[in-house]
Amino acid sequence: MKLVRTGKPGAERPGLIDRDGRVRDLSGVVEGIGPAQLAPAALAKLAALDPATLPLAGDARPGVPWTGIGKIIAIGLNYADHAAEAGMPLPAEPIVFLKANSSLNGPDDAVMLPFESQKSDWEVELGVVIGTTARNVSKAQALEHVAGYCVVNDVSEREFQLERGGTWDKGKGCDTFCPVGPWLVTRDEVPDAQRLGMWLDVNGERMQKGSTATMVFDVATIVSYVSRFMTLEPGDLIATGTPPGVGMGFKPPRYLKAGDVMTLGIEGLGAQRQQVVAYGAR
Amino acid sequence: MKLVRTGKPGAERPGLIDRDGRVRDLSGVVEGIGPAQLAPAALAKLAALDPATLPLAGDARPGVPWTGIGKIIAIGLNYADHAAEAGMPLPAEPIVFLKANSSLNGPDDAVMLPFESQKSDWEVELGVVIGTTARNVSKAQALEHVAGYCVVNDVSEREFQLERGGTWDKGKGCDTFCPVGPWLVTRDEVPDAQRLGMWLDVNGERMQKGSTATMVFDVATIVSYVSRFMTLEPGDLIATGTPPGVGMGFKPPRYLKAGDVMTLGIEGLGAQRQQVVAYGAR
Repeated sequence: MKLVRTGKPGAERPGLIDRDGRVRDLSGVVEGIGPAQLAPAALAKLAALDPATLPLAGDARPGVPWTGIGKIIAIGLNYADHAAEAGMPLPAEPIVFLKANSSLNGPDDAVMLPFESQKSDWEVELGVVIGTTARNVSKAQALEHVAGYCVVNDVSEREFQLERGGTWDKGKGCDTFCPVGPWLVTRDEVPDAQRLGMWLDVNGERMQKGSTATMVFDVATIVSYVSRFMTLEPGDLIATGTPPGVGMGFKPPRYLKAGDVMTLGIEGLGAQRQQVVAYGAR
Repeated sequence: MKLVRTGKPGAERPGLIDRDGRVRDLSGVVEGIGPAQLAPAALAKLAALDPATLPLAGDARPGVPWTGIGKIIAIGLNYADHAAEAGMPLPAEPIVFLKANSSLNGPDDAVMLPFESQKSDWEVELGVVIGTTARNVSKAQALEHVAGYCVVNDVSEREFQLERGGTWDKGKGCDTFCPVGPWLVTRDEVPDAQRLGMWLDVNGERMQKGSTATMVFDVATIVSYVSRFMTLEPGDLIATGTPPGVGMGFKPPRYLKAGDVMTLGIEGLGAQRQQVVAYGAR
């Protein structure tokens, strides 16, 4: 099942994608798509619906496909080739950082360059959506706590992240720096999350091309690992790292400028498109 | 005005402290204390009430004094003497990190040692509560966006923070690691946030004693600075760093163990008391 929320920012309505790729309106069935709807029983209820019986929603802007995201955890340098291009050693255990919730952005909404940004960069990532509370869970149990998957663009300002002192969070949590969606694809539709092709273009030029097969730490390991440090709650999002091809890795580096367009996607999880706009433009 | 939320976890009722230090029940006036109640006009409405006309709430557990905390930003090494005891250079600009929202804890609730924690430590900090949206605001305007202040214990696992790779967030966002309260003290009651004495005891022994006067970057600078990187939203919390006396700074270091009791406070902002419990005890 592919869950969506479509409509104007703040007024999105819940929906699901039917077999013809059209959005069917779920607002007569559920109030929204939030932590309560991500529980296995609630998802099963939605999956039991016949999409053909639901009204067509028509075309509308996709928002973040669910609400109630308590925290956004992200994993750094989780693809061996990306660590190499970043000039950083392969991590011995997952690198964990947080993205500010205020960075959340619809998958096709404009990405705004931060104030005085010179080094804004892209990162296509597999997003993992938590469905049930996970606290110190084993690797074997970990995927049972996953409601589904989505595309995330872990937009990053490299100067703020790496050259301004302190932790990475300063360059990872800027407004609009976390486009999520278009769909929350439930786990049953993703039989193997470690075999998904992924890509990102800037202005139509292929920058990133990779596969979740080359993750250093796989999804089950990450969920288990993070759950030892902090409880994962329904609705939490984990961005699991990016494959090679970020702007920082080019010689000389290539960074985003106003007017650029990022398009990105992951096999089976849909695609995003963001226009880059100058600071203050939204 | 001193705002509180008291009652069992998840069922706290809004209240305020009257001039005799008793809790007066606000639940007949507002549904809760959240971002909407932190706006200047909403606070003014509450301030205009005569507390004597409100019912006494009786004694009950204090919770985090407001809800709807979108993000918890924290500033590292913001007291010169603390940077020295941590063996880290004085920052040239504020060090910013995030604490997971799932680490929030009532001011007197037990603090649980994380799984396999050996180096859990304390940090009394001045908390700044955002009342109105702040995006790239000047230092001169910054305090206008502050609804009030509170006590925060920025509990930190030093091994997870510093020895496990990556950013600090792994050791800062553990469950129960962010006790907040007992009060949200509105800004009008804190004429100078840079002259507040602060202290923290473990088992009655004074560990930290300091004053917000020795911050490297003052509250106005921090609010202005952070707002350049990410929009500060009503309800957001900023923990502004800790004075000397953390466990890591002792030779040899002193860390928390189950059974320890932390008591801490800041002049005019009230006091907290946390019993430390073993992993799994809550």
